[in-house]
Amino acid sequence: MARIAYIDGQYQPAGDPAIMVEDRGYQFADGVYEVFAIRQGHLLDEDLHLARLQNSLAEMDIPEPASMASMKLVMRELMRRNRVREGVLYLQVTRGVARREHIYRTRLRPVLVMTVTATNPAARAKVRREGISVISVPDQRWARCDIKSISLLPNVLARQSAYTSGAGEAWQVDAAGFVTEGAATNAFIVDREDCLRTRLADNGILNGIVRQVLIDIAYQLNYEMKEVAFTLEEAKDAQECFSTASTLAVFPVVSIDGCVIGEGKPGPVASALAERYDALAKQPQ
Amino acid sequence: MARIAYIDGQYQPAGDPAIMVEDRGYQFADGVYEVFAIRQGHLLDEDLHLARLQNSLAEMDIPEPASMASMKLVMRELMRRNRVREGVLYLQVTRGVARREHIYRTRLRPVLVMTVTATNPAARAKVRREGISVISVPDQRWARCDIKSISLLPNVLARQSAYTSGAGEAWQVDAAGFVTEGAATNAFIVDREDCLRTRLADNGILNGIVRQVLIDIAYQLNYEMKEVAFTLEEAKDAQECFSTASTLAVFPVVSIDGCVIGEGKPGPVASALAERYDALAKQPQ
Repeated sequence: MARIAYIDGQYQPAGDPAIMVEDRGYQFADGVYEVFAIRQGHLLDEDLHLARLQNSLAEMDIPEPASMASMKLVMRELMRRNRVREGVLYLQVTRGVARREHIYRTRLRPVLVMTVTATNPAARAKVRREGISVISVPDQRWARCDIKSISLLPNVLARQSAYTSGAGEAWQVDAAGFVTEGAATNAFIVDREDCLRTRLADNGILNGIVRQVLIDIAYQLNYEMKEVAFTLEEAKDAQECFSTASTLAVFPVVSIDGCVIGEGKPGPVASALAERYDALAKQPQ
Repeated sequence: MARIAYIDGQYQPAGDPAIMVEDRGYQFADGVYEVFAIRQGHLLDEDLHLARLQNSLAEMDIPEPASMASMKLVMRELMRRNRVREGVLYLQVTRGVARREHIYRTRLRPVLVMTVTATNPAARAKVRREGISVISVPDQRWARCDIKSISLLPNVLARQSAYTSGAGEAWQVDAAGFVTEGAATNAFIVDREDCLRTRLADNGILNGIVRQVLIDIAYQLNYEMKEVAFTLEEAKDAQECFSTASTLAVFPVVSIDGCVIGEGKPGPVASALAERYDALAKQPQ
């Protein structure tokens, strides 16, 4: 069965030509996006993602393409048409179509697209059980990583470096030696003082939804939790490391640059947080 | 008459849906581009642009979508079909189409698109005669500005700031106070010691084709010429400032942040370089 996408008001096969060559998303990376996890037919943390989308649009001065209520209806219809109950929903809004020049003289009509992809829950279980290896790379990105824009080329190159090294993710390191975040995940450690740490969400990182939810869970579970950056050396010396993202929620990290973390297997804090996240995900929102 | 674009092997109206939603150019800014000036039916500095395109593709590990000889044929056919003899030709290559994930597991078939737009030579004459005003903005871009990628969101935001301030360009300033380049132009000054200066083409700027040609012309005209960065303060205090880009070649700058440059009108060095560039542009390559 062909995958069906929602593209600028139409449900149509995802593989059909649909986007204008002068869509500013295609020529200038002038757009924003969200990725929602779908579990058992439900969108996880839907309202948090939509609130962040509204923030991204406001930061970029892009009008909302539709009401949040109608976007919710389209998301449900798209899952239904694709019969996807486990997977991800990708949502993108670009500024609109105009003859190519850097500036946008007027507010354009934004272009909304959505796709849905099925994933295998067994893949999530395998990552949780075995963890991933990570490499470190210099953070080469721009100064506004807090905006969830489609200007993702540096992230692509970082993640591809990991892939060609046989690793599952690249943790990016700033000029001062601090880990900012992964190419497509936030980064956490449990340091030598039993403190769970992740970088403060300033302009240097994207404030992940799973990151936010896990911080709340950490407080509920009475973990000592600090939003304080850590160096690459602290990460390599940590008791535990893990990455977070909507796709799989928690990715335990078992090595960085070939250096084994803790006992070289997923740690108890990552596992406890993942378990609690999964439990919350099963509750209706 | 509808503008005709060349899109992945087809000549078709530029306004028709043509691009796949999962083209990596649309979801990851995973592509590169060139902009050629067209004057009197000829492409300026064609071979220099195509050589840079080959470099950009190699840096990004994107295969060449066609031989340079066949791209030249398509460029000519597209100009002919659009009957454009004064304007710009835009050429973009994206990595290809694949189900969305950051990494590209295999080499994909790249997507080549071209559009042609007519411009009015009177607009060029007006800029040469009157100059443009510039504002300064912090350089927020990534660490590989030497790659001519479509990851242009920071450039868009900088240029838009200029536009909403009533200026024609934004000069970007690095953390140390040095001008890197404009949002879509390179930056030159004639300093107090009569020295023509532009920043060295390292990873921090795009090495513009007009920049390269004008440096050659400057040597031919026996100007003192240094590829040495200048601060924003040096620019404001300079005898002359100008920007360069393929679209208009030379943009004399008459003010920066409201501070009048020189006598507040295009200076003699900018005018001499522009005149010589125009003369060379009239010769068959």
